[in-house]
Amino acid sequence: MKYSKLFGKTTYGEQKGSEMISHQFLTRGGFIKESVAGRYFFLPLGWRVHEKIKAIIKDEMDKAGAQEMISPVLHPLELWQETNRTNTTGFELMKVTDRRGGEFALGGTAEEMFVDVVRKFQVSYKDLPFNIYQFSTKFRDELRARGGLLRVREFVMKDAYSFSRDEEEFKIEYQKMWQTYTDIFERLGLQTMVVESDNGYIGGEYCHEFQVEHPDGEGKFFVSEDGSYVAHEEVAIMKKVSMNESEEEKPVEEVDAPRGNTIEDGVKLHGLPAWQQMKSVMYIDEQGRYILAVIRGDWGVNEMKLRHQSGSIELRPATEEEIVVLGSTAGFISPVNLKNEKLLIVADDSLVDIKNMYTGANAVNRDLLNVNYGRDWQAGVVGDIAQAVVGAEGVRGGKLAEKQGIEVGNIFQLGYHYTKLMKDAVYTDVDGQTKPYYMGCYGIGLGRTMATIVEKFHDDKGIVWPKSVAPYQVHLISLSSKDPAVVEKNNAAAQSLHDELEAAGVEVLWDDRAEFSAGAKFADADLIGIPLRLVISEKTLKENSVEWKERSAENSQLVLLSEIVTSIKKFLE
Amino acid sequence: MKYSKLFGKTTYGEQKGSEMISHQFLTRGGFIKESVAGRYFFLPLGWRVHEKIKAIIKDEMDKAGAQEMISPVLHPLELWQETNRTNTTGFELMKVTDRRGGEFALGGTAEEMFVDVVRKFQVSYKDLPFNIYQFSTKFRDELRARGGLLRVREFVMKDAYSFSRDEEEFKIEYQKMWQTYTDIFERLGLQTMVVESDNGYIGGEYCHEFQVEHPDGEGKFFVSEDGSYVAHEEVAIMKKVSMNESEEEKPVEEVDAPRGNTIEDGVKLHGLPAWQQMKSVMYIDEQGRYILAVIRGDWGVNEMKLRHQSGSIELRPATEEEIVVLGSTAGFISPVNLKNEKLLIVADDSLVDIKNMYTGANAVNRDLLNVNYGRDWQAGVVGDIAQAVVGAEGVRGGKLAEKQGIEVGNIFQLGYHYTKLMKDAVYTDVDGQTKPYYMGCYGIGLGRTMATIVEKFHDDKGIVWPKSVAPYQVHLISLSSKDPAVVEKNNAAAQSLHDELEAAGVEVLWDDRAEFSAGAKFADADLIGIPLRLVISEKTLKENSVEWKERSAENSQLVLLSEIVTSIKKFLE
Repeated sequence: MKYSKLFGKTTYGEQKGSEMISHQFLTRGGFIKESVAGRYFFLPLGWRVHEKIKAIIKDEMDKAGAQEMISPVLHPLELWQETNRTNTTGFELMKVTDRRGGEFALGGTAEEMFVDVVRKFQVSYKDLPFNIYQFSTKFRDELRARGGLLRVREFVMKDAYSFSRDEEEFKIEYQKMWQTYTDIFERLGLQTMVVESDNGYIGGEYCHEFQVEHPDGEGKFFVSEDGSYVAHEEVAIMKKVSMNESEEEKPVEEVDAPRGNTIEDGVKLHGLPAWQQMKSVMYIDEQGRYILAVIRGDWGVNEMKLRHQSGSIELRPATEEEIVVLGSTAGFISPVNLKNEKLLIVADDSLVDIKNMYTGANAVNRDLLNVNYGRDWQAGVVGDIAQAVVGAEGVRGGKLAEKQGIEVGNIFQLGYHYTKLMKDAVYTDVDGQTKPYYMGCYGIGLGRTMATIVEKFHDDKGIVWPKSVAPYQVHLISLSSKDPAVVEKNNAAAQSLHDELEAAGVEVLWDDRAEFSAGAKFADADLIGIPLRLVISEKTLKENSVEWKERSAENSQLVLLSEIVTSIKKFLE
Repeated sequence: MKYSKLFGKTTYGEQKGSEMISHQFLTRGGFIKESVAGRYFFLPLGWRVHEKIKAIIKDEMDKAGAQEMISPVLHPLELWQETNRTNTTGFELMKVTDRRGGEFALGGTAEEMFVDVVRKFQVSYKDLPFNIYQFSTKFRDELRARGGLLRVREFVMKDAYSFSRDEEEFKIEYQKMWQTYTDIFERLGLQTMVVESDNGYIGGEYCHEFQVEHPDGEGKFFVSEDGSYVAHEEVAIMKKVSMNESEEEKPVEEVDAPRGNTIEDGVKLHGLPAWQQMKSVMYIDEQGRYILAVIRGDWGVNEMKLRHQSGSIELRPATEEEIVVLGSTAGFISPVNLKNEKLLIVADDSLVDIKNMYTGANAVNRDLLNVNYGRDWQAGVVGDIAQAVVGAEGVRGGKLAEKQGIEVGNIFQLGYHYTKLMKDAVYTDVDGQTKPYYMGCYGIGLGRTMATIVEKFHDDKGIVWPKSVAPYQVHLISLSSKDPAVVEKNNAAAQSLHDELEAAGVEVLWDDRAEFSAGAKFADADLIGIPLRLVISEKTLKENSVEWKERSAENSQLVLLSEIVTSIKKFLE
């Protein structure tokens, strides 16, 4: 391919609106171009990378026995109503009406569609398990797009859906996908951490994210010292050790507490440790219920965990007025003696065995001392609502460190979530009975993966593509000259090498532009990031050679033209 | 691939809502499944065919130097407003609004998007020409979907857009695409006729459709005896021979005409040939203008041609009342002495040299005889508005025959249509001046092409896929038996052959189902239509052989297992 005829050449200058290096380099290198915010053209160079990523994913998915197919982009809205996701999805659904009045969702994920197509067949236990997947455009009506390809409103996603007879059969598939994802990202050059996560709006009980560590990644997670426990901050669990379990319970005492509203104010006033203080945080949920989260004073409430414990879809902090209406007051909230039919108290499980705690008394400047769970108060729900903290011990041992990463893929157990909500989502079992199938789903965003590769593989001059996904394998440069005879000779040699390489199955991009200097061409080659650069000049031709420079190396060398194909084949192995 | 685990198996029974055989066989064979009317899932088997068609198109496009890329599916609506296509497209555009108020069209075709991305770069004459294309989902809000994949609301289209310095440079690309399309369809097994067509809503001056002859095709076109002239009925031109050019012009005469309103009534009354009668048809266009089309009595008005001549976007027949308002009367309309500032008379060019015509006199039962163009009346526009008729001589000689076909592809000259409507759609020429680029576009619908292949390649039992697009190359069947030892032996041999074939790079679908009879498996194989069927049974194993039957052949033969891979490689060549 001649670079002179390639559509989408390099441009220089800062790309506004993002500090992510992948956004900068992919735009400047001529890989992508923004249409409107969050929506991108993939130019020919960028599309080649995208398609190589796709081919690797497809190869590994097929090896694992998954079957590629495709569903329509427009999903009948009634399917999303069937699973109540028109209200509960985490991403805003885009809707469209056709001129016959049919309502559709622009697919953001396709669980309903895949269940719908499967239930159109009479599936028997003999057909199970199977895993069907597609590469298709997904839509997310994000309020804020950011970081180039890292958070967009439209992107190609590989989404797979597995159908199994039961959890046991499903778990085999889940493990297989876990391994497949590991293999895929390895071939893409990405080292991933598999992070236990919350499955959020998809439904189901457990899931794992594949995260690539990155200081600007949106995903925050905790890793135990030995790496055996890796969990998203939304779900990470600390080991809760006994503090003063054996201490004798003293009588409750109500005291004057002329203090401010913070935990530190209480610690200072009473001269007691923060962990012995009760932190009470009042929320209102989407049903209008008061949700009072109670936890140790030195820990924070994890809202995701709290929502799961209280069964709420949304939570917001209660206002000072709302707290007063309930018979308490901000800064002095306590679960002790607080009663209301709309109130649900959720206690962190660590509180149950801490003795003689202190807390507000639901009145300004009044505190209670020696409060004990069970004797003085009880919660509607006791469970883990604690936000993990750096340095704490993880639930499976080892101190927790915090990491940030980019989520490039995820695997979800869906269980019976969709099959129970959707009619006739059943197979006929060996006993002739119809039973719901047990599902999983598995996603990879291709554009985000591409950006992540650039985040990991670049230097200050540009991208350094791994061989597996480079847009071309060889970047051939024929140098120009003031002497037309030299130009002609260089070009003839380059044309001949270009043709020889293509005939040998090597993908080659040839910068044939006459009007560009050696420096400009080298800068473009560094920016574009093809693994191997070959330069033909008057000097190299005198040696019957070509200059060989690997993008990831500092130095160059001369290689005989007669040996070049062999050397390249070896390099690409 | 084991058929037992393939998602989307055969189903039997009539597919309602379509008499097209491709719809029947693709549905029953487990290739596609309808989501809602006009929107289809491609099941794993069908998607394999779709992707093979795609690979052939891509291969030929790339060979021709075109560059694959991708544009967002959601097009900013302002781009469509820039070219005024929100009003004038032939297909209803689907629109969607995001939660920040951004308006988008669901892409039905992507001229604006491609111009938009090109104008984001500073393109110089050195970059031109280039041809960029994509495979992407297109949306058409059709009122009536029909024929399975033949007319749908959502489909994958390969759309290419070429950018050239001028018409001369463009014509080379147009010819290249013409040849590329011919090659593509040949590889797909389809014989195409290249049909001159109206470019309709796309804009531009000329275009060609690639039609596959088919009695139920929606496209009607005319072909001259020697095949040198092939034109869509909307644009086909007859040679207009002189009728009585040398006859002396006689004086006009107004006569009583107690007759009905048809051409035949006039012929009968005056005893003169139909071609000498003037047929005057009154229309109203979208601007409220009266458009009076005048043509020989034995020919019909071609509304597409008339619209081009009058410059109208839409035409409808005038009502009897509207004709009276204009000072005429239905059945007796005549352009002679008919004047109104809102009236445009469009005369077919054949009328100019027909002498002494007869016509109504704009009054009930009154006719004019010996009317002559130029002397007695004149038209605002004179041009070709005649609908071609079977048996007439085509404009380039030879009698015209009528054919029907399925349009599988088209190539359009767009010229400066988009570049003139869109701001900054320019390149910098060698002289430093900015000039609009000259465009073409080129489309192929993949699903429709797939259905057309089935329309052409099937028998009464099912599909007979050409090797180039078959979902698998070999359909392996292991026969069942009441004797478990035989079943085990057959299956072991089949497993071994299956693995051997896969290792040799042969795509094999293995019907391994225990519970199906030989007859049921053979029927499925015939329906699915894979080119080569291999059967392993107790009988064949006794001969160390496998039964070989080509889908397109009547007879089968035994082939030694030791020779099977070689034979298959030869068969697939």
